Amino acid sequence: MARSTSTADDEESQPLSPVVIMGTGLVGASIGCALTAVGEDVRLRDRYRSHAVVAAGLGAGSVEHPIPTSVHLVVVAVPPQAVPEVVDWALSHYRNAVVTDVASVKAPVLADLRTRGRDLSRYVGSHPMAGSQYSGPLTATATLFVDRTWVVARGTGNEASQRMVERLAVMCGAHVVHLDADEHDRAVAEISHMPQLMSSLTAARLRDVPASDLLLAGQGVRDVTRIAGSDPALWRQIITANSTEIGTQLRAIRGDLDRLIDQLDDPDAIADLVERGREGVAALPGKHGRKIGDMSAVVVEIPDTPGALARLFTDIQAQGINIEDLSIEHGLSREVGYLSVAVDAERAPDLRAAMVRAGWDLRS
Amino acid sequence: MARSTSTADDEESQPLSPVVIMGTGLVGASIGCALTAVGEDVRLRDRYRSHAVVAAGLGAGSVEHPIPTSVHLVVVAVPPQAVPEVVDWALSHYRNAVVTDVASVKAPVLADLRTRGRDLSRYVGSHPMAGSQYSGPLTATATLFVDRTWVVARGTGNEASQRMVERLAVMCGAHVVHLDADEHDRAVAEISHMPQLMSSLTAARLRDVPASDLLLAGQGVRDVTRIAGSDPALWRQIITANSTEIGTQLRAIRGDLDRLIDQLDDPDAIADLVERGREGVAALPGKHGRKIGDMSAVVVEIPDTPGALARLFTDIQAQGINIEDLSIEHGLSREVGYLSVAVDAERAPDLRAAMVRAGWDLRS
Repeated sequence: MARSTSTADDEESQPLSPVVIMGTGLVGASIGCALTAVGEDVRLRDRYRSHAVVAAGLGAGSVEHPIPTSVHLVVVAVPPQAVPEVVDWALSHYRNAVVTDVASVKAPVLADLRTRGRDLSRYVGSHPMAGSQYSGPLTATATLFVDRTWVVARGTGNEASQRMVERLAVMCGAHVVHLDADEHDRAVAEISHMPQLMSSLTAARLRDVPASDLLLAGQGVRDVTRIAGSDPALWRQIITANSTEIGTQLRAIRGDLDRLIDQLDDPDAIADLVERGREGVAALPGKHGRKIGDMSAVVVEIPDTPGALARLFTDIQAQGINIEDLSIEHGLSREVGYLSVAVDAERAPDLRAAMVRAGWDLRS
Repeated sequence: MARSTSTADDEESQPLSPVVIMGTGLVGASIGCALTAVGEDVRLRDRYRSHAVVAAGLGAGSVEHPIPTSVHLVVVAVPPQAVPEVVDWALSHYRNAVVTDVASVKAPVLADLRTRGRDLSRYVGSHPMAGSQYSGPLTATATLFVDRTWVVARGTGNEASQRMVERLAVMCGAHVVHLDADEHDRAVAEISHMPQLMSSLTAARLRDVPASDLLLAGQGVRDVTRIAGSDPALWRQIITANSTEIGTQLRAIRGDLDRLIDQLDDPDAIADLVERGREGVAALPGKHGRKIGDMSAVVVEIPDTPGALARLFTDIQAQGINIEDLSIEHGLSREVGYLSVAVDAERAPDLRAAMVRAGWDLRS
């Protein structure tokens, strides 16, 4: 069912313009920046005109009126709950335009639209898998979607509408993946929404931990709970909209958790769970799926002097050792930072020795 | 009850030597390296003599025989299950030595030792909160414990024995925290073991996710599941040994999970959970407790050319902007890497503009 996105036919040489973007948050404004950067005529609309003006200032498009009626494409990038109503409005208002949305849950939007009785041949659901744990009006950028996955919902819109939304994704630098709306919602429940809730559940428990116990916190709990710092207002809408698929995931986790609680005194059962977790991590695509045992961390104290990190990287790269991962850690009590550099385990001793020779202080 | 560790009395000017370290894995060998570096006479023992020889080669001490009977301190750094038996043996074999262990669970070790009927005035339980997701014989280093927390179990050993183990911790560069064995085990269940199992439970679910859905994986699921890549052989022992405290934590999580499953269609309940998670993250000590909203990520494509990272850091640091966090991300399909630099949200636009002026490609 996957369609090619690389063929350049006559249709694809046509501009998308004029394009209307409704909703100028991080995703809407970034799409505007990407399209403006390649010469498209982008018009911005937002419930709060001041937001659209800020986005225009970032290069996302124009807030001029009136908007021509000859609009070819409307991108609806409003908060999830408002999407069906705004898509419906756009379909009726721009009679010749293809309308797409970027909501992170697809089947409920489609179901809602179907109850409204309008012809949906010009509506295509989509979901660019970008965004960021950081949000806010100033984080928009033309390259937010470069090398990211952009899901185009199969079975929504006619062939020409699908093609136009695929072109939108490709123009933003993304890779198109075709999934049915139901498949998409299952996938994000598995790979995004369930992990988000596991992180929040873990982090919420820390509220009851005495401050003296929190002193024992290491890097592990910080990694697990990092995305628990995300925006409650956004997640209340996402989780509620995808509650059926998320419920399936969470009930499976509850089954696993019940078994774990029953088997806490069984070493083989514990080892089996941890091993299954390793297999799950290894299944993730890309370098991040490498098993941790293949790498070793070299941790260098970062002196509190200007340019220290630059000098440090100069010394590391002089060794010709590939850096697999990087993070900054902070000392518990001293105002000191450490740079943790993960490299191939076999090369780690060489790097450590070289760093010591270059006068750096190592931690591990 | 907390004792000062900074007083320098006559006793503290005495050497610890000779010190015997039993078990030369990451923790034992690193303690050996730290003590050797400050001039102590360290003797290494391991069930597998070749491991001790490797550790000696890293500077952890000597494998010479015979070991003098005048040993002052024995550090038991064997796998958790073997700790009570080896501590008991050390107490009987080295009649004048203080014996400590570094197992990550303290109450069961103490309970086991008490059933053996030996005088425990020379035994002090301890737990250096170091180690690393990376393990293996070559990762030992004298600075593994610098600026880390080292728990010394209150109520174990007599006053002089406690003092000697505190000196050991301080000589390794750690900060001493005094906790009862029960308090310690509760704290690590809350802050380490429970998050570890939540990560494994999340990661284990990914095994059932179709490969096409895994393409949608972003940074969030990778963060949550990173520590799930840890060693099953180690964790089977840790979890089993601390099953009572971990059970308490997991039953509390199950209660939270049951409520969540019941309330998935209640937006206010979802927002409340996410908000409680944010509060938990904020409770963690150090900069990592900052709410994510305060920071913004600037993501720069790393060219595949020698020295690129060093040049990149030179350009970043020329802006005089404090780097709060760093990570490397990998492109999904292209062999390209991105450096994600988290900075104060207000400074991010300046940094982005400067990076573009300097010719770097940004992603977000």
